[in-house]
Amino acid sequence: MKKIIVDTYDELSDLMNSIIVAEMTKDKKSNISITAGASPKGVYERLVKFYKKYSKDVKNTYFYNFDEVPAMNPNEEGMTLSSLREQFYTPANVEEENIVKLNLDNYDTYDQIIEDNGGLDLMMIGLGADGHFCGNMPMGTDFSQYTYRMYIKEEYPWYAPIKEQYGDNEVPEYFVTMGLKSLLKVKHLVLIVNGTSKAEALKKMLTLDMTNEFPATGLLLHPNFTIIADKEAAALL
Amino acid sequence: MKKIIVDTYDELSDLMNSIIVAEMTKDKKSNISITAGASPKGVYERLVKFYKKYSKDVKNTYFYNFDEVPAMNPNEEGMTLSSLREQFYTPANVEEENIVKLNLDNYDTYDQIIEDNGGLDLMMIGLGADGHFCGNMPMGTDFSQYTYRMYIKEEYPWYAPIKEQYGDNEVPEYFVTMGLKSLLKVKHLVLIVNGTSKAEALKKMLTLDMTNEFPATGLLLHPNFTIIADKEAAALL
Amino acid sequence: MKKIIVDTYDELSDLMNSIIVAEMTKDKKSNISITAGASPKGVYERLVKFYKKYSKDVKNTYFYNFDEVPAMNPNEEGMTLSSLREQFYTPANVEEENIVKLNLDNYDTYDQIIEDNGGLDLMMIGLGADGHFCGNMPMGTDFSQYTYRMYIKEEYPWYAPIKEQYGDNEVPEYFVTMGLKSLLKVKHLVLIVNGTSKAEALKKMLTLDMTNEFPATGLLLHPNFTIIADKEAAALL
Amino acid sequence: MKKIIVDTYDELSDLMNSIIVAEMTKDKKSNISITAGASPKGVYERLVKFYKKYSKDVKNTYFYNFDEVPAMNPNEEGMTLSSLREQFYTPANVEEENIVKLNLDNYDTYDQIIEDNGGLDLMMIGLGADGHFCGNMPMGTDFSQYTYRMYIKEEYPWYAPIKEQYGDNEVPEYFVTMGLKSLLKVKHLVLIVNGTSKAEALKKMLTLDMTNEFPATGLLLHPNFTIIADKEAAALL
Repeated sequence: MKKIIVDTYDELSDLMNSIIVAEMTKDKKSNISITAGASPKGVYERLVKFYKKYSKDVKNTYFYNFDEVPAMNPNEEGMTLSSLREQFYTPANVEEENIVKLNLDNYDTYDQIIEDNGGLDLMMIGLGADGHFCGNMPMGTDFSQYTYRMYIKEEYPWYAPIKEQYGDNEVPEYFVTMGLKSLLKVKHLVLIVNGTSKAEALKKMLTLDMTNEFPATGLLLHPNFTIIADKEAAALL
Repeated sequence: MKKIIVDTYDELSDLMNSIIVAEMTKDKKSNISITAGASPKGVYERLVKFYKKYSKDVKNTYFYNFDEVPAMNPNEEGMTLSSLREQFYTPANVEEENIVKLNLDNYDTYDQIIEDNGGLDLMMIGLGADGHFCGNMPMGTDFSQYTYRMYIKEEYPWYAPIKEQYGDNEVPEYFVTMGLKSLLKVKHLVLIVNGTSKAEALKKMLTLDMTNEFPATGLLLHPNFTIIADKEAAALL
Repeated sequence: MKKIIVDTYDELSDLMNSIIVAEMTKDKKSNISITAGASPKGVYERLVKFYKKYSKDVKNTYFYNFDEVPAMNPNEEGMTLSSLREQFYTPANVEEENIVKLNLDNYDTYDQIIEDNGGLDLMMIGLGADGHFCGNMPMGTDFSQYTYRMYIKEEYPWYAPIKEQYGDNEVPEYFVTMGLKSLLKVKHLVLIVNGTSKAEALKKMLTLDMTNEFPATGLLLHPNFTIIADKEAAALL
Repeated sequence: MKKIIVDTYDELSDLMNSIIVAEMTKDKKSNISITAGASPKGVYERLVKFYKKYSKDVKNTYFYNFDEVPAMNPNEEGMTLSSLREQFYTPANVEEENIVKLNLDNYDTYDQIIEDNGGLDLMMIGLGADGHFCGNMPMGTDFSQYTYRMYIKEEYPWYAPIKEQYGDNEVPEYFVTMGLKSLLKVKHLVLIVNGTSKAEALKKMLTLDMTNEFPATGLLLHPNFTIIADKEAAALL
């Protein structure tokens, strides 16, 4: 594991953007998995500018989502894909053919799809304050899985917020996520962590034994794993 | 070959810097070969800032020079190493142990040194207006070589400027350079080209048949080769 | 380049077979390009046995042909594919979906097909007594090409035998072959050379300057190139 | 994970030998870690023949041991190294400079040594009937470790046989082993399992949850992991 602690969120965004852009410049197909959410906001500000301008030069770059949560309206695209569209695909004008989608219908062949495409070169992920990574949630995580279904059980600590999110709509039975085994096959795994609100989580990840109560503890096994944290997130290390 | 034509020299410098920085973030030893000269000036402005700040985090990065020209004073370090010190190693505070030096004494074992260190991951090179790359000069280049000695013969078109450079000092018999075969083993080769003065050279490189009269024509054989050019350099394409 | 000179043709066949089989055992998609002809006869004797028995375990192995010559009957499969079927695909029961075919209709997208599949991991080739490799024939070879069409011109030294082969049928205008640039992208390139009849060719390949009069001279540029020769083929080295 | 079940121990030995030999034929430095013991006996019969004959051609192959147990006589070499000498290094005439030794004095820098050499390309391991891999013993294994010391405690189920082995000599305080994190960095990890006596262990490894009571369960996380088992060992699958 390589840990780089930068001063500011801007530096974090610059560095993560550099890693993604560099992957795109190679004279080969590039398979990149990216995360939605708050942490990569700064990355996407930069990446949208680059990609919009040079998409033709880097057209052999393909984007993969690593989890998917059913939309409230079953006829709509999943929540992860929707977020990625909003944050990156739409403003950057990424072509549909460059987007590889994970969903409830293809999750059990998703690792094969990735393998058939030559494997993932790079994945950018964030860290949940509760220790989740991708859709590997506390208590529900099974470290022995490739891409799998995560059951949404009332007994899990994260059920309440999901229930609230769905409001009057029915909470789905499960969502899908790439598992630890899928991630261990990614050639370069990069975790970005920023802000005071993640300081406790980062400390736990780096000090707890591997446990499905705090799934991110499993990431430390990755053979080429980089953590980029800003000072605030690293305050407790 | 992947060709990315950017608008400005600043964009070129940003992109090349991103590629180098990204290589350093991997959780492994990174072996990087870099060029001195005018083209990477903007890269080094950026890279010095990054490296000075995060050198401890990326301390398993090693820098290799790809050619060396004897100093006028035989007791001094070679011209390439001196330039690299001035442009990058000294302002960035790169430790001596992270600098792998090529010179007249070790050139015949240099490829073995590189192999023993796991191979070069990345090389940044520039393009000579006369078509040279590294120290592979017009007419003197032998495409069948790994690292080798380039004889400085009066018959070569580039003898006069060298002679002038050495002034009253004796012109050395030869200098040393990594050859095409050494470069073909580099995992990612990136050429930066900027400015109107390089437009003709870039056009020649991309259109001439492979010839030692314009050595850069040989680079197009590289299996993972990226050209980053600004608009001025790409004006004749 | 790494050169291994073995005592016998059996040892050559064992070693080449080992390299192919080892590639298949990896827990990933394996893309392998193989040659038809006399040299790999011993390899296929071994490989057919292994593949027939363990094809289910190594079913993520894909085979690519690297050249194709039109059949006399335009409704039939090309000569290379036919030979590969006879020597390997049919006796080994290779499924159609594991065979990636190059032909006159797809040659200009073949490198893209390969890239989309993650690139070639391994290629086994032979050496022509006249210095050809794949379908890169003397005088007709253009070292600057990826997969391309080779025109069958009367002026070429190899026209007569082709003419004879086609007999009363019309000689086709061209055939197709992967070019040097395609081969330089293969992760491991292995050349097998056996028998006294190849001794002169092997010597030429290793001593001549790179020339399209003896195309195999270009192979020496490959960054991960292994030559396996038996004693007879190596007799003049 | 890729699982190949072969009919006989001879086939297992052939296949494993092929994988090692193939790694050696690459035109690069090859770093290979190998196991002592009963399972690789057939492999070494084959490999000794190959290496003795072609050691000069594959001289850029380096061998690493992955654990070490102190000898009874503290002035002697460790038990693992002694076994490897007896089974392979000595009969194959492997030069000392091609042997990279792990021991109690260098274990805390061993992963750095490996990284400085470009990383391990291949590791061949066996499976303990008690579920150990390398020196990762039941109950004593810590999955969060790179190369580390394993304390030899009386409370462990494997203390008695070790005690017996040392006889009147003092049982050492600990031995050293590469840990799961070190193994996850190996590019290709291959496990050989043969014989009825290993059938139960192989079944456990493939069905139990990851647990330090049966350390081999951790291996399933490896991103490029191949199991070669003979029919007897696979009888319970």
